[in-house]
Amino acid sequence: MTHSDGAHMAAEIAEQPAVLARVAAEAGPRLAEVARAIQARRPRFVLLASRGTSDHAALYAKYLIEIRLGLPAGLVSPSTMTVYGSRPELRDVLFLAISQSGGSPDLIDSVSAARDCGALTVAVTNNPSSELARAAELSVDVRAGAERAVAATKSYTAQLLALYLLLMPLAAGGPDNGQLAEQAAAVSQAARTTLDRSEEVSAVASAYRQADRLLTTARGFGYPTAREAALKLMETCYLGAQAFSGADLLHGPMAMVDAELPVLAVATPGAGGRAMLAVLERLRQRQPALVVVGGLPGLPGELPVLPVSTEGLPEELFPVVEILPLQQLSYQLARLRGADPDAPRGLAKVTRTW
Amino acid sequence: MTHSDGAHMAAEIAEQPAVLARVAAEAGPRLAEVARAIQARRPRFVLLASRGTSDHAALYAKYLIEIRLGLPAGLVSPSTMTVYGSRPELRDVLFLAISQSGGSPDLIDSVSAARDCGALTVAVTNNPSSELARAAELSVDVRAGAERAVAATKSYTAQLLALYLLLMPLAAGGPDNGQLAEQAAAVSQAARTTLDRSEEVSAVASAYRQADRLLTTARGFGYPTAREAALKLMETCYLGAQAFSGADLLHGPMAMVDAELPVLAVATPGAGGRAMLAVLERLRQRQPALVVVGGLPGLPGELPVLPVSTEGLPEELFPVVEILPLQQLSYQLARLRGADPDAPRGLAKVTRTW
Repeated sequence: MTHSDGAHMAAEIAEQPAVLARVAAEAGPRLAEVARAIQARRPRFVLLASRGTSDHAALYAKYLIEIRLGLPAGLVSPSTMTVYGSRPELRDVLFLAISQSGGSPDLIDSVSAARDCGALTVAVTNNPSSELARAAELSVDVRAGAERAVAATKSYTAQLLALYLLLMPLAAGGPDNGQLAEQAAAVSQAARTTLDRSEEVSAVASAYRQADRLLTTARGFGYPTAREAALKLMETCYLGAQAFSGADLLHGPMAMVDAELPVLAVATPGAGGRAMLAVLERLRQRQPALVVVGGLPGLPGELPVLPVSTEGLPEELFPVVEILPLQQLSYQLARLRGADPDAPRGLAKVTRTW
Repeated sequence: MTHSDGAHMAAEIAEQPAVLARVAAEAGPRLAEVARAIQARRPRFVLLASRGTSDHAALYAKYLIEIRLGLPAGLVSPSTMTVYGSRPELRDVLFLAISQSGGSPDLIDSVSAARDCGALTVAVTNNPSSELARAAELSVDVRAGAERAVAATKSYTAQLLALYLLLMPLAAGGPDNGQLAEQAAAVSQAARTTLDRSEEVSAVASAYRQADRLLTTARGFGYPTAREAALKLMETCYLGAQAFSGADLLHGPMAMVDAELPVLAVATPGAGGRAMLAVLERLRQRQPALVVVGGLPGLPGELPVLPVSTEGLPEELFPVVEILPLQQLSYQLARLRGADPDAPRGLAKVTRTW
């Protein structure tokens, strides 16, 4: 293993504005074609299968599907099919598999089983020649380009935008092709503006240098960001980072929060961010040094903020930019702590699970 | 608030063999009746709504539904309906809400919305006069009896057994009423045997006395146990306890594991436990002091085990007993650390979220 000391991760974080533009330009036509094929089959239920970072892209898709498509959806536990041999009745089901590498055997087997059980299977990968892409009836390459750091960054934001472009044409009153192209251009620009504002990230990284644990929280469209940020901090900094929806936090884990536990709350203007206001009030009583990602009017007191540009974006696209300062934080904190974010101990780029 | 120093939690843990017998005897007939009503409506998809400990009962139900009923299922994010006002098409959907108190406004609103959207709504609560029970078309009282400790124990195992008795009559080739009664008697006896073996729990509690973080892991039917154990340790001991499916662990969080991080792996003989063998091998390389809950043949080396009695039980009922030594561990560790597990800081028994 080469010791690149995070050079790959840094480059891949910085590349995201260009990657997002490429997703729209190069994957856009295929995404529109697959969207039409899905529409023709009129699915009534959506299942999502994924692992790791892609699980958070799947969670994002679940919110889009429930809120904008008005369809019930569920995240699959692959073990039900691979360990227990379940063969459910999947007529009228869209089975969406999301994976950077397209190489994990349990996902490939789940897609094959779902296809046998009558589902329309669609794979969203960053590797069009993967076994997962071949196993699914339809597949899309998100065109993030080769990702060399083990910690996924650009493949994640590319998945988010690809899922938005795939699913929004299925929403009643959703954006047309021209509007989608405009939104994709706006998200690329917002990503550039957000990445350029990194001085606040450095201050938070310094403050967290000695932390052993950390908590992230959000609601609604912000929740996948909280989950992905926690995973990134676990992978690159070996921090015990835990993510909770703002509501779930109040049902138990709040007991752990004290002045010693750093908390990162995602709250960007929008319904999800506004629903966090009451949670932020409760958190502030226990952890005065709370950091808010995004920042919204009506925040209690003078909380430190990691700014996120959301100019011209619908709330559904906020997750693409909200994760960026948190990727930068993971990278900077790993470097401060002497870890190599390109090659975390104990991990390989393609994880094979059964 | 009275300072009962964990007397309620200790009593409620010990009461579980009797509670499980009562669930079968007193809730059994109503569960069978609701099962017949569900069968008559032939649902094609199942959605589950819950918060906190009940979320882990919902996750258990999801495995039962996917594996034994062969139906696709999903865990609802209540915010999609309550924060974003989503009104999905829920014809042919069974919407199952699980809550100890039946008092959280977001669950009540989700059930009302799901009912308006065409779902068959069923509430499983420990409070038959709750607003949640009234909001649902059908409801079942699990009959765990009043629970006074904030950390839920007997209401959780009562929910698990109630869900088993509710759902298994819908499984092709599932147990008949006589077999269900025998299984319920066996699980009550297995709970008694498991609770009586608490010396190993005391040894693990002493070993974890200074721990700040902890990791739990399992696969398949054991996974809800890993999740619930982590929540219990967070609530009562303020430990940074994190739960991962054995497969997800390999996709990132494994990087955090080192000899300083205590790991509790649930692996009881059965398909889920056997699927953990490869994960245990990987974990052992990084954390030699791994503790196994359950214990199964072929375990690497001389790992310490928290024994679980599963005599006469199908794997689907293992979760009812697997959680018991972990409840005892949470209680004992909280007491060793000087916390009051009956009244964790920052929590109330009924959590109201919107």
